[in-house]
Amino acid sequence: MTTQQLIQQIRTKKSFLCIGLDVDLNKIPKHLLDAEDPIFEFNKAIIDATHDLCVSYKPNTAFYEAYGLKGWQSLQKTIAYINEKHPEIFTIADAKRGDIGNTSTMYAKAFLEDLDFDSVTVAPYMGKDSVEPFLAFENKHAIMLALTSNEGAFDFQTKTTDGKELYKTVIETSKTWKNSENLMYVVGATKAEYFAEIRKIAPDNFLLVPGVGAQGGSLAEVCRYGMNANVGLLVNSSRAVIYASGGLDFAEKAKIEALKLQQEMEEIMNK
Amino acid sequence: MTTQQLIQQIRTKKSFLCIGLDVDLNKIPKHLLDAEDPIFEFNKAIIDATHDLCVSYKPNTAFYEAYGLKGWQSLQKTIAYINEKHPEIFTIADAKRGDIGNTSTMYAKAFLEDLDFDSVTVAPYMGKDSVEPFLAFENKHAIMLALTSNEGAFDFQTKTTDGKELYKTVIETSKTWKNSENLMYVVGATKAEYFAEIRKIAPDNFLLVPGVGAQGGSLAEVCRYGMNANVGLLVNSSRAVIYASGGLDFAEKAKIEALKLQQEMEEIMNK
Repeated sequence: MTTQQLIQQIRTKKSFLCIGLDVDLNKIPKHLLDAEDPIFEFNKAIIDATHDLCVSYKPNTAFYEAYGLKGWQSLQKTIAYINEKHPEIFTIADAKRGDIGNTSTMYAKAFLEDLDFDSVTVAPYMGKDSVEPFLAFENKHAIMLALTSNEGAFDFQTKTTDGKELYKTVIETSKTWKNSENLMYVVGATKAEYFAEIRKIAPDNFLLVPGVGAQGGSLAEVCRYGMNANVGLLVNSSRAVIYASGGLDFAEKAKIEALKLQQEMEEIMNK
Repeated sequence: MTTQQLIQQIRTKKSFLCIGLDVDLNKIPKHLLDAEDPIFEFNKAIIDATHDLCVSYKPNTAFYEAYGLKGWQSLQKTIAYINEKHPEIFTIADAKRGDIGNTSTMYAKAFLEDLDFDSVTVAPYMGKDSVEPFLAFENKHAIMLALTSNEGAFDFQTKTTDGKELYKTVIETSKTWKNSENLMYVVGATKAEYFAEIRKIAPDNFLLVPGVGAQGGSLAEVCRYGMNANVGLLVNSSRAVIYASGGLDFAEKAKIEALKLQQEMEEIMNK
């Protein structure tokens, strides 16, 4: 998917919501556990209920790897279902991969070619040749960790390097890499005041924003500092949407939570 | 496996060789491609031929994920085979994972519990709560990226942060984390002079050293600066061993290459 197509989708749906499909068998409704593939059944119901309210789905691969082969099968079925039924949706493999060049190429092919995600999240620590392989695919995107939403973000990301915080060095340096127009960045919602700083360095790039809802970030604050003329944000919510109810009405309740977020987003976009 | 058991194995075998099982179907002998599971057949033959010359096997997960479900099955069969036939071997899932705390816990369970690897490689960028979940398993280890062997290592890892290079800050900080005695570090062989610096900060930790052979590092130089009283090194070779021959004699040739490295290591250990 091109960035323009993503922007168009955001304008049409009046939403920049990304729903995180972080499926934990201990948290999904009990009645699904008898299904042949409970994870896929859960995702399918969530997707059917919410696809017109969000512009992106983001399965975190950890939740699928945790179930071994069955988990990978659920991931394959989930991405295939989205690509077939809702090809307008921007899909993110939240995998946080990164390795030496030829190995990153293997990861990139796995997620962007074989599974056919639109994008994959990547870790910056190993530098240029660990990320560039993810940028080599036409109309695909790499979403690089910049400033994450967890406590540990302050261990290294905000340390001063060459006179500025490491996350700024990471973003600035990455802009010199080949096909860097295919880069987006992960910026946690828990630190809204940082968005103004990041927009000085990366005015045009899309930012994937976790940490709204369960992790405590405020949507209004994030938009105030982070939004650009093309919106430029994908705000993720996982648990608050997909686990809105643990009963038979889980998809319906997920839709209600997604609608609340979409309406809040529409209001902000109309301003 | 405890660190003491690893040290004992190194002393018994007079080897600190780790063999990287980075299996690419384009590189393995053609006659294996007719097998039901060519990757596993290749690994099994390499393991049968080399297990008394090395102390560790390290499959890089990228090479398995690249083949989707079949690849994961090959990975499962490979680790199960090593654990059953050669339980003395220290196994490393080279996965370079790391995410927010509850998500890292999913990865840790997947690799250290379900697949039952002795260790998994992790990325430091997201800090403490992204790594500690990997340290919470008794007699299991996390091997954190410190100074990698690729060109991109110089993009961020060697940048000055708080008066010292980032990789030093990463190692020092990680030593304050819970169960940090279960930490090892990845340090590339291509920069032997850095080992002296790292040994000042981490005199006792094991270092996993890629980059000998195909990536150009020298074993003698690495040992000169990096070895401690318990050896404290796991030196990895992947391509130079496993692709020593592309013919019917691939396992035999792999054994010859592994033997050369083991003999070089024995000589250094005897000094």
